[in-house]
Amino acid sequence: MMEPLALGIDVGGTNTKYGFVNRRGEVVAKGSIATEGHATPYDFVQAITTAVLPWMAHYGKSNVLGAGIGAPNGNHYTGEIKFAPNLPWRGIIPLAKLVHDALGIKALLTNDANAAAIGEMQYGAAKGMKDFVVVTLGTGLGSGFVANGQLIYGHDGFAGELGHVIVEKSGRLCGCGRRGCLETYASATGIVKTATLWLEQRHEPSLLREQQGSITAKTLYEAANDGDKLALDIFDYTAKILGEALADVVTITSPQAIIFFGGLAEAGDLLFKPVHHYMEANMLNIYKDSVQLLKSALPDADAAILGASALVW
Amino acid sequence: MMEPLALGIDVGGTNTKYGFVNRRGEVVAKGSIATEGHATPYDFVQAITTAVLPWMAHYGKSNVLGAGIGAPNGNHYTGEIKFAPNLPWRGIIPLAKLVHDALGIKALLTNDANAAAIGEMQYGAAKGMKDFVVVTLGTGLGSGFVANGQLIYGHDGFAGELGHVIVEKSGRLCGCGRRGCLETYASATGIVKTATLWLEQRHEPSLLREQQGSITAKTLYEAANDGDKLALDIFDYTAKILGEALADVVTITSPQAIIFFGGLAEAGDLLFKPVHHYMEANMLNIYKDSVQLLKSALPDADAAILGASALVW
Repeated sequence: MMEPLALGIDVGGTNTKYGFVNRRGEVVAKGSIATEGHATPYDFVQAITTAVLPWMAHYGKSNVLGAGIGAPNGNHYTGEIKFAPNLPWRGIIPLAKLVHDALGIKALLTNDANAAAIGEMQYGAAKGMKDFVVVTLGTGLGSGFVANGQLIYGHDGFAGELGHVIVEKSGRLCGCGRRGCLETYASATGIVKTATLWLEQRHEPSLLREQQGSITAKTLYEAANDGDKLALDIFDYTAKILGEALADVVTITSPQAIIFFGGLAEAGDLLFKPVHHYMEANMLNIYKDSVQLLKSALPDADAAILGASALVW
Repeated sequence: MMEPLALGIDVGGTNTKYGFVNRRGEVVAKGSIATEGHATPYDFVQAITTAVLPWMAHYGKSNVLGAGIGAPNGNHYTGEIKFAPNLPWRGIIPLAKLVHDALGIKALLTNDANAAAIGEMQYGAAKGMKDFVVVTLGTGLGSGFVANGQLIYGHDGFAGELGHVIVEKSGRLCGCGRRGCLETYASATGIVKTATLWLEQRHEPSLLREQQGSITAKTLYEAANDGDKLALDIFDYTAKILGEALADVVTITSPQAIIFFGGLAEAGDLLFKPVHHYMEANMLNIYKDSVQLLKSALPDADAAILGASALVW
C-alpha cells in the first residue's frame, strides 16, 4: 500500500504550481499550469484536474487525503477567494468547492501567508512550536499567526494582515488606499521604493546609481554585500521599521519565533541582524531575548506547494 | 447534592476578594481580606485559607472544583507572580502552588486582563464567541486575546500586553521605562495626564479649571457630559489614539468584538462612539463594520471574582 499524500496547490498570478507531498514533506510529484488564459475559474479548475488526475490514479485516489490550496485573499472559512487584484477573474471565486467537485477529495483553502505558517509547523522551522508568526516578505508583506498550535483566522477568516498595520501616519500610499502601512516599507517593493526615493534625495556616490530604474531587492542586497553605504543604510532603515513593528507584535501574541519567508528574506543576516537589534531595542522588558528570528526552513522551490499541502494533515 | 462551584480569587494591591461561583456566573458566597499586612506570601495564603475553608466545608469540598486566581503579572503557565510592583512581596511568588497546597484543590493563575477575558467568555459579553479581545481600562491598559476559543498566552505566558504597543515615538514616559506606550494615553491615568497637560497649554474656560489637582477619569466624564468643550476634546483625543491602535489590532487577530472593562469603560458612549469612529476611519477595508465594540457584561462589583473563577471550568 502507498503512503498517504496531500495535494498542494499554489495559485499565483502567473502560474499555478501543484505537488503531491507525503507527511514528511517530501514532494513525490509536481508540475504547473498557467493561471492566465482560462475564461472562468471553472475552466481553470478543469485545467488543474487534467494535470493532476493521472497522478491521483497513479498513487491511488484513496491515498490522496485531500487538496490544500494557497491563494491570494483565500478565506479558510468560506473556501472562497474574494476580489484578488492579481488574479484574472473578478468577484468571489468558490475555489475550494470547485476543486472538491472536480477531484472528489476534500479541498481546503487559505491565503499564501497562512499556508506558509502551516507549512513551517508541519515540515519546517516551526516544527513542535505552538506560538509563532510567519512573515512573508515578497511583493507585499503577509503574515500567519499561530497561537496554541492553531492558526489565527479571526472571526471572519481574514486575520493576519500585519502588512497593513500603520507604522507611519501620513506615510507612503498603500495599495489598500490608506497611508503608512508596514508593507509600503518592509517588502521587496517597499525597499526598492526607499532606494528610489533616497537616490533622488541623497547625493553621495553609490553602486546603486548605475542601476537606477532597474533596482530590485536582489541588486540592493548585492550592493549592500559589497559594502555600499547607501544600500546598507537602506537595509538599516527598512530593518528599523520592521523591527519596531515586530516589537509591537510580540506584546500581543508573545511568539517563540518569528519566521521570515519570501524573496526579501533571502537577504538573510543583512536584514535579520538589524531587525533583531531594533526589535530588542524597542521591546518591553519581559519579552527581551525571548523571541527567535528564523529563516524559513521550507526548500525554496517547493515552499508554496508544501505550505498549501500542509492544510490537509 | 450541591451544584459544582469554582472559587474565584482576585488579588489586588490593597484587598483580595474571593467568591464561590456556579456555572451560570452566580456568586453564591463572597468576602475579602487585606492583601497587605502579611509578612510572606505563605502567611497571605494562610489568611485566604482561614477565610474560605468554612465555606468549602459548607458547600462540600468535592463540589468546589478548583480555585482560579487573577493577579497582577500572574503567569498561567508557571502559576507564579513575577515582580508585581503593586504587591507587598518581592521576587517570584508561586501563588497557584501555595493555594493548591493550602486548600487541596486545583489552583490556576493568570493576570487580571486574561481573567476578565475568560470571565466574559464564560458568563459575560463574549458568550459563544471564539475570537474577541478584552481591553481593561483602569490605572493601566490591560488586554486578553481569545482566538479559536482559547486565550492567547504566548509561548511564555506573557502575551496580551496591548497597553505597551508604542503609539507615539518619543511620546510620554511609561512605567515600563519606554516612551509612547498606549497605556500612557488610553487609561484612567493617561486621560488624567492629558487633562493636566492641556489645562496648562490651553487657555479657554473649562469646568475642569476648578478641579485642577483633583481631576479623575470620573470628573472628566462628568464635565464632558455637561458639555464642557475641553473635556470633550480630551475624550476625543484619547479615543483617536485608542481607535487607531485598535484598527491595527484588528489586522492581526480580526476579532468579532472588542470588549471594554474597568473604570474608564464606565464613560460608555462618550468614549466608545469616538473610538468606533476613529477605529473605522483607520481600518483596512476588509474589516470595516465587522467588529463590535461592547461594554463588559460582568456585574461591576463581582467582575474580577467572576473572571478569576472562570479559569476553573
